[in-house]
Amino acid sequence: MQRILSTELAGHVDETVTIAGWIHRRRLLKSVAFLIVRDAAGLSQVVVTDPATREQLEQLTEESVVEVTALVTANEQAPRGVELTAPVVKELSRVAVQLPFELHRPTLNAGLPAQLDHAALALRHPSRVANLRIAAAAAKGFRAALEAQRFVEIHTPKIVESATESGANVFKLDYFGRPGYLAQSPQFYKQLMVGVFERVFEVGPVFRAEPSDTARHLAQYTSLDAEMGFITDHRDVMAALTLTLKGMLGEIGILEDAVRSEIPAVHFSEALRIAGAPEDEPDLAPAHERALGEWALREHGSEFLFVTGYPMRKRPFYTHPDPADPTWSNGFDLLFRGLEIVTGGQRLHRYEDYVAALQRHGQPLEPYAGYLDGFRYGMPPHGGWAIGLERFVARLTGVANVRETTAFPRDLHRIAP
Amino acid sequence: MQRILSTELAGHVDETVTIAGWIHRRRLLKSVAFLIVRDAAGLSQVVVTDPATREQLEQLTEESVVEVTALVTANEQAPRGVELTAPVVKELSRVAVQLPFELHRPTLNAGLPAQLDHAALALRHPSRVANLRIAAAAAKGFRAALEAQRFVEIHTPKIVESATESGANVFKLDYFGRPGYLAQSPQFYKQLMVGVFERVFEVGPVFRAEPSDTARHLAQYTSLDAEMGFITDHRDVMAALTLTLKGMLGEIGILEDAVRSEIPAVHFSEALRIAGAPEDEPDLAPAHERALGEWALREHGSEFLFVTGYPMRKRPFYTHPDPADPTWSNGFDLLFRGLEIVTGGQRLHRYEDYVAALQRHGQPLEPYAGYLDGFRYGMPPHGGWAIGLERFVARLTGVANVRETTAFPRDLHRIAP
Repeated sequence: MQRILSTELAGHVDETVTIAGWIHRRRLLKSVAFLIVRDAAGLSQVVVTDPATREQLEQLTEESVVEVTALVTANEQAPRGVELTAPVVKELSRVAVQLPFELHRPTLNAGLPAQLDHAALALRHPSRVANLRIAAAAAKGFRAALEAQRFVEIHTPKIVESATESGANVFKLDYFGRPGYLAQSPQFYKQLMVGVFERVFEVGPVFRAEPSDTARHLAQYTSLDAEMGFITDHRDVMAALTLTLKGMLGEIGILEDAVRSEIPAVHFSEALRIAGAPEDEPDLAPAHERALGEWALREHGSEFLFVTGYPMRKRPFYTHPDPADPTWSNGFDLLFRGLEIVTGGQRLHRYEDYVAALQRHGQPLEPYAGYLDGFRYGMPPHGGWAIGLERFVARLTGVANVRETTAFPRDLHRIAP
Repeated sequence: MQRILSTELAGHVDETVTIAGWIHRRRLLKSVAFLIVRDAAGLSQVVVTDPATREQLEQLTEESVVEVTALVTANEQAPRGVELTAPVVKELSRVAVQLPFELHRPTLNAGLPAQLDHAALALRHPSRVANLRIAAAAAKGFRAALEAQRFVEIHTPKIVESATESGANVFKLDYFGRPGYLAQSPQFYKQLMVGVFERVFEVGPVFRAEPSDTARHLAQYTSLDAEMGFITDHRDVMAALTLTLKGMLGEIGILEDAVRSEIPAVHFSEALRIAGAPEDEPDLAPAHERALGEWALREHGSEFLFVTGYPMRKRPFYTHPDPADPTWSNGFDLLFRGLEIVTGGQRLHRYEDYVAALQRHGQPLEPYAGYLDGFRYGMPPHGGWAIGLERFVARLTGVANVRETTAFPRDLHRIAP
């Protein structure tokens, strides 16, 4: 018999159907036994009175996998108004060990290390499932919104020749007998691909050999990158990001209306003033970001706020300066509820500007040869952004640790499972 | 003035518009100059008679980036029946070097190594653009078809603790002072995630330290992985793959009708007979696959052919045997025009079967601990497949070398750009 999902039961009252899933909970009372079966869609209640079936259930502990063929019976007290009666239970896979923690409680009764050690089990808990579904929806919304704006998906190398972009914190590997490094971002490649498609995006892993063990850092995370050509300045990038963010939140199904058609923006120098910071501060501290978040909500009724024009000296060498005053950049951050969740901006696009910028940063040209080559061959004004998927989901859901938003996190201490 | 695309010109005859792009070709004749401008959508012809503009053009060699504001004029001889006249040309980025090869010829007049050395330029050639667009469409179609079948996207670790799945050919790295390895596939993780979502997929990089320098091998490629639970056997996986393949080809816009609702399938033992191979052959040689491709076209009018039941001794340890005869597996390959493009099958799902299989393969359990843990906690019968995106595109387009289907290939000799 064709299996149906738990959510489809209500449409089959008084019919015999087959469901399948994990034994989420088993309650063996004196005269009756209840089985809660969990499938990808939800939970079903199975009522067992037959002594032989009850005996069978005594062997099947929580998380065993079963197929249940039974009569769908209306019962107002049961989930979604239906339960399954007179079941025939077929065992698909039996759990023979004690579970390290229970899944049927509202919160997981285990510390985060134990959850991560047994990720294959912990990830089945509804709270973890919800976070991973949000991550999947965010990536789907990101792609769909960009494709609607003519962006083309690319796949770029994760093994690179030089430890360039931020120098330190890079994983080194043996590449056929010579050194190679894991890419910290697709930055250089997505810029080169603007020369091919004008507008590109990539959803993929990036790697940071981050030596600090915090609730915000992962050694591998999923970066949502976009880059676009033929812009006037960073404001075109901010407009494309705004549309994309709206698409992402729409796909997730929350907060879509919180994204205005134009998100409020303040210049960095104004942001310092609002946050009450000294006017020579080169960057925004977490407390400043929080103050700006409160200000944006109070003054503009917006949970999102762009801060533009960060000082050139704090931005990477490929950042385009503000033509009106090259102390400031055409770079921006997007704050969400007082925390930076996106970094972006306009990039340099002329070869000679790159050569000058690297010299100013005291960097040799040679490690950047393959990247700079592309700018010799004609590149339009362009810019883009990167969103860290896990941090974005953490901020949306309010979970305290970014490790709870990804399936199998990697950090300073953890390389398994 | 808002820029429009080359493909939109025909809708603006007798209007003044702005286009932007790369100088694809420049022809300086005696009394007139022609400029072919390339943007992401196509080519536009610009006619220059004004002496000052012509002088400006003499400085702007091919691949320089320009913005052109001009009158759209009907001309039957021009591409799409329109050309731009009386242009004002604004230089956005000038090319000051000799190009290593020309882009405006139908085929790139440079060998593959030169193309790969100057990838940022070579990838702009229409032939390379077309391949990359097919790759993007294939991935898009893959995801959409799977989402329609309730699959959920996952992101799994690319850095792993043990060099397990196929042992050799793995990149080793320094992970915070201890050894780590780049994942050769998401196989184990996607299986564990069946316990969470029942059906999952991942589009991501995989890494093979492949020591042979062939037209088919890359050190990094994009793997299109799917895995699904609650199957009866491998035939459920083949049915889901068939639907997915149809979605991929539909999105690419070719061959969709070549995928039947049921692709013909032959058992491995029958495949050997058809190919005229000895009946004790453990695998299909390329010549056998070609013979089977011809047979499928002749006997079934199909460009695709499933070969099922590969011998257990040639498949990985996690392969589920054929319950009727455990010499054979519930594993399959999909041949397209006589070449394997997908490998898949049913996997083991019981912990004790994994322990026995690893012992039979003479493998210790310990490196697989994190993986096996998931099977202790109840896993349904499941299976899945993997498609190598670059090989798939190469087979579709007929390009001889898989390096022509990806932007910045990595191989035994190449780690840049």
